[in-house]
Amino acid sequence: MNHMTTDSTCIDNCSNCHKTCLQTAMTHCLNMGGKHLEPEHFRLMLDCAKICETSACFQLSGSKYSGDICKVCAEICTACADSCEEVGGMEACVSACRTCAESCTAMASHTH
Amino acid sequence: MNHMTTDSTCIDNCSNCHKTCLQTAMTHCLNMGGKHLEPEHFRLMLDCAKICETSACFQLSGSKYSGDICKVCAEICTACADSCEEVGGMEACVSACRTCAESCTAMASHTH
Amino acid sequence: MNHMTTDSTCIDNCSNCHKTCLQTAMTHCLNMGGKHLEPEHFRLMLDCAKICETSACFQLSGSKYSGDICKVCAEICTACADSCEEVGGMEACVSACRTCAESCTAMASHTH
Amino acid sequence: MNHMTTDSTCIDNCSNCHKTCLQTAMTHCLNMGGKHLEPEHFRLMLDCAKICETSACFQLSGSKYSGDICKVCAEICTACADSCEEVGGMEACVSACRTCAESCTAMASHTH
Repeated sequence: MNHMTTDSTCIDNCSNCHKTCLQTAMTHCLNMGGKHLEPEHFRLMLDCAKICETSACFQLSGSKYSGDICKVCAEICTACADSCEEVGGMEACVSACRTCAESCTAMASHTH
Repeated sequence: MNHMTTDSTCIDNCSNCHKTCLQTAMTHCLNMGGKHLEPEHFRLMLDCAKICETSACFQLSGSKYSGDICKVCAEICTACADSCEEVGGMEACVSACRTCAESCTAMASHTH
Repeated sequence: MNHMTTDSTCIDNCSNCHKTCLQTAMTHCLNMGGKHLEPEHFRLMLDCAKICETSACFQLSGSKYSGDICKVCAEICTACADSCEEVGGMEACVSACRTCAESCTAMASHTH
Repeated sequence: MNHMTTDSTCIDNCSNCHKTCLQTAMTHCLNMGGKHLEPEHFRLMLDCAKICETSACFQLSGSKYSGDICKVCAEICTACADSCEEVGGMEACVSACRTCAESCTAMASHTH
């Protein structure tokens, strides 16, 4: 088989996680400062937004590398959720990241 | 005022149009060939996906240039909807593009 | 004529400005703090990186909307250069933004 | 150590591979048709452009996940180079992909 079956739930979870992390980083964290702007945390928020956007693109294109991207995406989403829990008061991000990590892990195991 | 009010409906319309155009181009059009793969049409589908993704990013970041991007986005979405109507059998794209063009036009008029 | 002539100099200037702004924002500014992390300045740095990346993509794809994107790109690059001058100590960004703004302005006037 | 040392050569190789694959796909392949537009080949060209752009972004941001992205990037670049060799007449792509795969492989082994 040439290209993987797309899973609209995983695409939606990636898209939602991209939106939540980017918006929270660039409005909430950037304005709050303090530990919200600590370089490692803030960089992770933008890493997470970027890999989720990339993962959605690969899945939308029907790429056979979607599983490889989803695997990295799940790892970064999990790290981002952990970091957001540590910072505190970022429940929407934690939830979007955990949901995305879960569906990306499932997607990663289906392919290749 | 420093950054524009975000409009979650316009962000969602841009995100949905990005998804619909990218997925339709890379699965439906690429497999159908013929007028679906005519360079001007196909390039417009990917232009539309790209500007919608960019427009969503600017709005999510609370950028004060969101209105400028939305203006270009509305123009490209309208052209893409027209092209999809001409090709035929692409109702989901036509609808996503028209909806996105409408909210981007409204957003463009609110800013600066 | 169907798609614009690509100008590899303008593509290279956009690509270079994307790299310089993204790298400076995420390493230098994020670590320096203070006025380097003032929300309006920092957001502008990432806006500039994003529109330059988008502009390069449109030109690389031979899009007939390249001129429209270049016009917005020139505006954002100019604002970013001004903001970097005000912050101070950001000569590489100022130079990359001015160079990109100049070639994008020329590109914008060639098209449509 | 918190974030990896950036390697400007690998960033440049990713950026160059992104440009070469995107431009070749959207101008040369889209116009040539035939095996240049065979879905699996064409999708791989755009996958390669996208992962190279993502890889450059992670490295420019000083992300500690750069090595993970570079590993996937090297895999996709190698597959794209092979596919371009099979199609024929795509020497610039083959060369950009091989060069990028090599520096991404080195970068992947340095991290974590």
